[in-house]
Amino acid sequence: MAENKKMVEAITPMDVDFAKWYTDIVRKAELMDYSSVKGCMVIEPYGYAIWENIQRDLDARFKKVGVQNVYMPLLIPESLLQKEKDHVAGFAPEVAWVTQGGDEQLAERLCIRPTSETLFCEHFAKVIESYRDLPKIYNQWCSVMRWEKTTRPFLRSSEFLWQEGHTMHETAEEAKEETLRMLGVYRDFYLESLAIPAITGQKTEKEKFAGAEATYTIEPMMHNGVALQGGTSHYFGDGFAKSFGITFTGRDNTLQYPHQTSWGVSTRMIGAIIMVHGDDNGLVLPPAIAPIQAVVIPVAMHKEGVLENARALCDRLSAKFRMKIDDSAQSPGWKFSQYEMLGVPVRIELGPKDIEKNQCVLVRRDNREKIFASLDTIEETLEQTLRDVHDALVEKARKNLEEKTHYAKTLDEMIEISKNKPGFINAMWCGDAACEDKIKEVTGGVKSRCIPFNEEHFSDTCVCCGKPALHHVVWGRQY
Amino acid sequence: MAENKKMVEAITPMDVDFAKWYTDIVRKAELMDYSSVKGCMVIEPYGYAIWENIQRDLDARFKKVGVQNVYMPLLIPESLLQKEKDHVAGFAPEVAWVTQGGDEQLAERLCIRPTSETLFCEHFAKVIESYRDLPKIYNQWCSVMRWEKTTRPFLRSSEFLWQEGHTMHETAEEAKEETLRMLGVYRDFYLESLAIPAITGQKTEKEKFAGAEATYTIEPMMHNGVALQGGTSHYFGDGFAKSFGITFTGRDNTLQYPHQTSWGVSTRMIGAIIMVHGDDNGLVLPPAIAPIQAVVIPVAMHKEGVLENARALCDRLSAKFRMKIDDSAQSPGWKFSQYEMLGVPVRIELGPKDIEKNQCVLVRRDNREKIFASLDTIEETLEQTLRDVHDALVEKARKNLEEKTHYAKTLDEMIEISKNKPGFINAMWCGDAACEDKIKEVTGGVKSRCIPFNEEHFSDTCVCCGKPALHHVVWGRQY
Repeated sequence: MAENKKMVEAITPMDVDFAKWYTDIVRKAELMDYSSVKGCMVIEPYGYAIWENIQRDLDARFKKVGVQNVYMPLLIPESLLQKEKDHVAGFAPEVAWVTQGGDEQLAERLCIRPTSETLFCEHFAKVIESYRDLPKIYNQWCSVMRWEKTTRPFLRSSEFLWQEGHTMHETAEEAKEETLRMLGVYRDFYLESLAIPAITGQKTEKEKFAGAEATYTIEPMMHNGVALQGGTSHYFGDGFAKSFGITFTGRDNTLQYPHQTSWGVSTRMIGAIIMVHGDDNGLVLPPAIAPIQAVVIPVAMHKEGVLENARALCDRLSAKFRMKIDDSAQSPGWKFSQYEMLGVPVRIELGPKDIEKNQCVLVRRDNREKIFASLDTIEETLEQTLRDVHDALVEKARKNLEEKTHYAKTLDEMIEISKNKPGFINAMWCGDAACEDKIKEVTGGVKSRCIPFNEEHFSDTCVCCGKPALHHVVWGRQY
Repeated sequence: MAENKKMVEAITPMDVDFAKWYTDIVRKAELMDYSSVKGCMVIEPYGYAIWENIQRDLDARFKKVGVQNVYMPLLIPESLLQKEKDHVAGFAPEVAWVTQGGDEQLAERLCIRPTSETLFCEHFAKVIESYRDLPKIYNQWCSVMRWEKTTRPFLRSSEFLWQEGHTMHETAEEAKEETLRMLGVYRDFYLESLAIPAITGQKTEKEKFAGAEATYTIEPMMHNGVALQGGTSHYFGDGFAKSFGITFTGRDNTLQYPHQTSWGVSTRMIGAIIMVHGDDNGLVLPPAIAPIQAVVIPVAMHKEGVLENARALCDRLSAKFRMKIDDSAQSPGWKFSQYEMLGVPVRIELGPKDIEKNQCVLVRRDNREKIFASLDTIEETLEQTLRDVHDALVEKARKNLEEKTHYAKTLDEMIEISKNKPGFINAMWCGDAACEDKIKEVTGGVKSRCIPFNEEHFSDTCVCCGKPALHHVVWGRQY
């Protein structure tokens, strides 16, 4: 197929240059475009359609566990940002400041929200009075801004889209449960909708969120052995509540501070989808969030009845699936490559002979398997095929995760692995941040990803200093 | 009902103080809260749920006419904003400027988007090359910021949520059609989903959008006789295209400028819903966008079987409607007033006698009509009742619009009406902006709303200067 080859050539193979392969895909699949403000991107229709499907799916999961959506202001007064000292230290260096409104110089600088804990707290202080007002389980879908020096489409940008959940609870136990419940929602969403298995666990003190008591994370493994912080859920205790004077009258009639959480995932997930599932022919999209789940491609379009039958098939399937027909003048071969690049999970070919036999041909994006399907039961066959694609993507991603998971008992082993075997490195740790620093230094960038929920105990001593081990830690390079 | 009285007293009656009535509703129905940045509001869960329903409904209408959603950056470089001279003159005085990113003073100021024509044009210039790339029919849902001096919740705020559609077309005719098509989508949405009939027409030169060749508007009438610019659709010609160097190779192989439109509606619509349908008991929500379409209130909850039956009824109806049950310890009377204030279209009372008779009682929010409904056919009855509520709201709003529509042939008549009869004033106009200025001055604020699509010709002379009339204009005060 000459046309196919031509399309394929347009994408740099991942083994040649992974970063270029990534950029080729985001640009050629028209997911995003650069803008004249550094690090701020245009999300184009196909990229945004993926985000809309992510939003719809995840938002339904949120609502099932009682989340209510709200909208908080874009701007945070400097004095409000400063109320929680760890938080301001973490974010102040990387925010954009508004200093003028119209012709007027502002008396106080306002920053564009890098995250909205402070705004939620200001509001919570007003609306929480009694234990009857708790819990508050709020979320907002919005854009945030962090003035990043080095940016990369979807993975790290000055502005990005995300959701940020912020909740307040009567007790520390309830807030801790919520923190883990929401990480569980993310884990399920990653697996069931994005077809991405991942490691979950707790961040070390050094890596936790500015102002949090504990940060939990989901860490998927990219195809090149680099990890991605795919989502985080934070337990704040009552630190912000104290800083913001949020109190409630408890069941025992005493004045108490509520306990807080926050949790978020962002358009980074689109980066994860590309780097976990994509291949040298382009995107490979999980069926649950693919803007087009199947594309109908008429073969020998000029033959009588082909176009009508293809359109009828597309219409019929549109009742149940996100469909598209490509009846443009391009050759079938060109179309095959085009929809492979766009990562459409299944293409459906329909030609004169198929029509004669009352069948069509399904071709899976992930493995190019061909399935001859009777038109009588095409809905069932397509549904099953989409499930199969999903399962195969999970399987392949799990295999990649496993193949890229290593164990080290000594610092030498760790350095050796970090040089030659990209991926996660499991190693025991004494609990001292100095060892994290040293490991990062000697490996040239390997950081603690998390203390996994199912800790193993495969060595008694810290991989770095040899002192007694406190935790099993998963380490790795990250985007 | 003592409890009811208590709730009602909490809201200032509209005849006593319309502005206070409005503020009472937005605050007591917990639609919004103020924030520490002037003119930026917190949209609380109930208010945001209305906005989500508006978004879902309108977005589906957009997609039916081929609109694709995208996301553009939040920030616009000053030089980009300045590319179209009328546009910058209109917006520069009211934007917020970012001058610092992190610790660094920016070389060029960036404004927070007040609207995104310039960003869309920058992108269009890159992606449009041939007539085959047209039309581009893009939209984004986002927040925008205009540094307003006087603000009012939902009606005029420094930051607000909206959608902004931006389209590019091969020919002027096609772009003009699109402009009117989208105004038609707004008109249908207002009528079919918000239950708000409205006047539609073209803005005069003086009132059109900064940079547009023509602006079309939808103008609903509030309960107090004040109009609201409820949505606009603009035809730009090729003005922006020329300023931004957007060209395409046409079918005849010549280089041409595409023709552009933009159109938007915002969270103002929530203000319109309140001021068109609300009454002295609180909100009245159109069923299509009500977060709760019907609330089940168990009566004599302590009696055996009541709670179980009420819950079962709520569950059963949840399959088809947005339902809530209030089984809290509050009295039924308190609940009746509470859900009246929240504008829930129908409440369903279920007590021991109802259960005995296999029935429940539906009470309409709009007119308090009681309907005894068999449980066997409750889905049908509720569906019909919601339709009836919608129709009655339309009818009531239409009546208000008609009652508040007046005609004037002389300036004295116009002044007289503007003083004593709040509402729209129909009057003929010569086409001179000087007459618009004079009318505004002598009436203390009456402005041209639009030249309606169905112009009448009820006088030969301009209501202001007596010269020959060019157009029928609808005038009025506005929010």
